[in-house]
Amino acid sequence: MTGRPTLAVVGATGAVGAVMLQILSQHADIWGEIRLIASPRSAGRKLAVRGEEVEVVALSEEAFDGVDIAMFDVPDEVAEQWAPIAAARGVVVVDNSAAFRLHPEVPLVVPEVNPHAVRTRPRGIIANPNCTTLTMIVALGALHAEFGLRELVVSSYQAVSGAGRAGVDALRAQLSLVAGTELGTKPGDVRRAVGEDTGPFPEPVALNVVPWAGSLREDGWSSEEMKVRDEARKVLGLPQLPVAVTCVRVPVITTHSLTVHARFQGEVTVDRAREILATAPGVVLCDDPAAGEFPTPADVVGTDPTWVGRLRRALDDPTALELFVCGDNLRKGAALNTAQIAELVAAEFS
Amino acid sequence: MTGRPTLAVVGATGAVGAVMLQILSQHADIWGEIRLIASPRSAGRKLAVRGEEVEVVALSEEAFDGVDIAMFDVPDEVAEQWAPIAAARGVVVVDNSAAFRLHPEVPLVVPEVNPHAVRTRPRGIIANPNCTTLTMIVALGALHAEFGLRELVVSSYQAVSGAGRAGVDALRAQLSLVAGTELGTKPGDVRRAVGEDTGPFPEPVALNVVPWAGSLREDGWSSEEMKVRDEARKVLGLPQLPVAVTCVRVPVITTHSLTVHARFQGEVTVDRAREILATAPGVVLCDDPAAGEFPTPADVVGTDPTWVGRLRRALDDPTALELFVCGDNLRKGAALNTAQIAELVAAEFS
Repeated sequence: MTGRPTLAVVGATGAVGAVMLQILSQHADIWGEIRLIASPRSAGRKLAVRGEEVEVVALSEEAFDGVDIAMFDVPDEVAEQWAPIAAARGVVVVDNSAAFRLHPEVPLVVPEVNPHAVRTRPRGIIANPNCTTLTMIVALGALHAEFGLRELVVSSYQAVSGAGRAGVDALRAQLSLVAGTELGTKPGDVRRAVGEDTGPFPEPVALNVVPWAGSLREDGWSSEEMKVRDEARKVLGLPQLPVAVTCVRVPVITTHSLTVHARFQGEVTVDRAREILATAPGVVLCDDPAAGEFPTPADVVGTDPTWVGRLRRALDDPTALELFVCGDNLRKGAALNTAQIAELVAAEFS
Repeated sequence: MTGRPTLAVVGATGAVGAVMLQILSQHADIWGEIRLIASPRSAGRKLAVRGEEVEVVALSEEAFDGVDIAMFDVPDEVAEQWAPIAAARGVVVVDNSAAFRLHPEVPLVVPEVNPHAVRTRPRGIIANPNCTTLTMIVALGALHAEFGLRELVVSSYQAVSGAGRAGVDALRAQLSLVAGTELGTKPGDVRRAVGEDTGPFPEPVALNVVPWAGSLREDGWSSEEMKVRDEARKVLGLPQLPVAVTCVRVPVITTHSLTVHARFQGEVTVDRAREILATAPGVVLCDDPAAGEFPTPADVVGTDPTWVGRLRRALDDPTALELFVCGDNLRKGAALNTAQIAELVAAEFS
């Protein structure tokens, strides 16, 4: 195959779709046509990509004619129906839904960690991990390559944009109700001020943290917690890795943070871990507490890398490291990783 | 000894002091005189306790004449100087500073966990743990008594009032600057809006989380993280317990939350853990995610117990439990536990 491949962006009008178009405009332009696809009600809208206005076409079988690679950011059930249709027409689908991530014949890819996995795609579908997994996995992949991971204990501090625009709208509306008040000091006062409508969250998220993300799975686990465990295992190629996760929503607009307790096969040193992280592609080490340097969402939002700080060796276990990691959940956590996978596949066309 | 003991409240005009007076007014009245002591600049102020106005007297040696028990909530260096002076005059000091917590001749007491420790106090001083340790220790003490703790991995979601009134003022001021804006989506936009003055925190805390609490200790650890490890070990009587902690500040006014990964000597069951927590004094089990029930700071603030939710057994380790715990850092985390210790000592006088 030669020539510039044709790319389709399916779900171009969504929040992640908008970031995809931004990234396509910023990255080296390797594409022939870029076709924008969305639901029929968005057809005819014009969106800017690579400095040009492109008209959105409605999702249909024919919309995939001539497409080489498609990036999907659509709800699980839409991906489940349409990714196989596109793949049957010869399109390589890079899907950001949860529909295929754990399918044994679908690779789950993070280009810095397991790039070669893109080559084996018997279904013509490649999956993109969820945003919380992506927050930590590039840094952990680099440490695993050197030290050999043996166990993970993870707690999340997840931004509201992980729940889409509705999540952002809910936090902004709640903040307007609590700012300039004395709320937050009496039982239920924030809840009464916010009222019944807490948006996509089960509790108010302003002046609060909510230990829940996703839907209920067995034995009290949330779907988000199961995703982090199952997807980290698959990307790292460690199907038996013990992973304990608790996911918590915090009043941050965009950028997930995680604390990670990572146990390795043998003794580790902070000096060597620091060297690895300082040179790992896609990672920025930001770790000098004496100078007040550690990553926070306010500084990380809008950037591409995984930021790592607060690197310490566990005081009571010479095989374990503690890390605090931040990553923009809409960029590396979604649109950027999807685009990186598509670019890996595109290299096959040159 | 007989008769009602005389109590002194040292640091009566501070944020925790105010909660102490509130608690003394709510609890069964076992005290004779209650004397309020503060720095000379607060002397002469009148504060309400047990429905009466009491005049604050200046801290001095003579201020302790006739006092049986004193609750101290003052800076470490003030406690270091004045607790021994009071003790030398026969006063039993219950100190909420960090000055004596790890002293081998000072018991560190949580009445639900190690009440008998109050009896052995060769210095006449009893210490109260820090607020983050107190958030989890009552629930962990109950589980330890049954299962035998072997390891802890803890991440905190700490309220700004842990940094005193200045912390609350800083968050309220920052919230007024970011509410009603589109901030939180571009690198540094929150920081620019907040400006240089971030109060007692090294970064803006509105629309952000900050992985730092306290001062810098060796090897990148924060003083708050070291306190949680050292104090948990001492209260539980497990001087070798492996404890890994990462402390993170979140935009919540009052009530600390923690995720806890607790590993025990042998296999545990959620059913038995649930029974233990449901009947443990000072613990409320709030754990029914199907009904949207888990503790959050917005509901817990202003209440006395340790609230426990999201109880799960680790999927890959039958000896480990995951918990999300919340506790009001000004009540059980400070004033309440101090008052409970003072009440334990007062029982010796009857």
